[in-house]
Amino acid sequence: MTVRSDTAIREALAAIAFDAEGLVPAIAQQHDSGEVLMLAWMNRDAVMETLRTGGVCYWSRSRGRLWRKGESSGQTQRLVDFRIDCDGDTLLVLVDQQGVACHTG
Amino acid sequence: MTVRSDTAIREALAAIAFDAEGLVPAIAQQHDSGEVLMLAWMNRDAVMETLRTGGVCYWSRSRGRLWRKGESSGQTQRLVDFRIDCDGDTLLVLVDQQGVACHTG
Repeated sequence: MTVRSDTAIREALAAIAFDAEGLVPAIAQQHDSGEVLMLAWMNRDAVMETLRTGGVCYWSRSRGRLWRKGESSGQTQRLVDFRIDCDGDTLLVLVDQQGVACHTG
Repeated sequence: MTVRSDTAIREALAAIAFDAEGLVPAIAQQHDSGEVLMLAWMNRDAVMETLRTGGVCYWSRSRGRLWRKGESSGQTQRLVDFRIDCDGDTLLVLVDQQGVACHTG
């Protein structure tokens, strides 16, 4: 997908119901096979970075920092589509996964 | 899938890393199309009931009680496969969804 405009990013952020910790769960699904790859979390900054750059970025709860998927492993996730469910409390992120997903990297 | 034995249920429960609130997120995916239907939560009782009966049961955080999917709508989810991710903190529930999924019902 094309990288989103600032307006589109603001609209997406407004539509997301972040929880009390400022997080929202994000299901990552391989865009073509339909394989569910992982469940991770995003905060506002992770959503913004994902939509701005097209490189999927999560919030690592264990490490307490942004987690640019693949930053250490090279197993990046390129964003294909970004969907917000009907009540805004879950994201479905369609990606093109390079290598294995899992938690490390 | 066949309904699980008590032993299999105990093994599943032991493999799940429930959070501080006793919950684990469960991604429901339509078993044949691969469509991601919803994200919901299970506690130990919901896992047990799901595995014992083959009818998918969640824990409703908003209502504070077990939520037998379809109990009011008839839009049940029959369990096809139940998978625990590698660190035990997410479930992938492959289902056969009757009708629409979403939150109501």
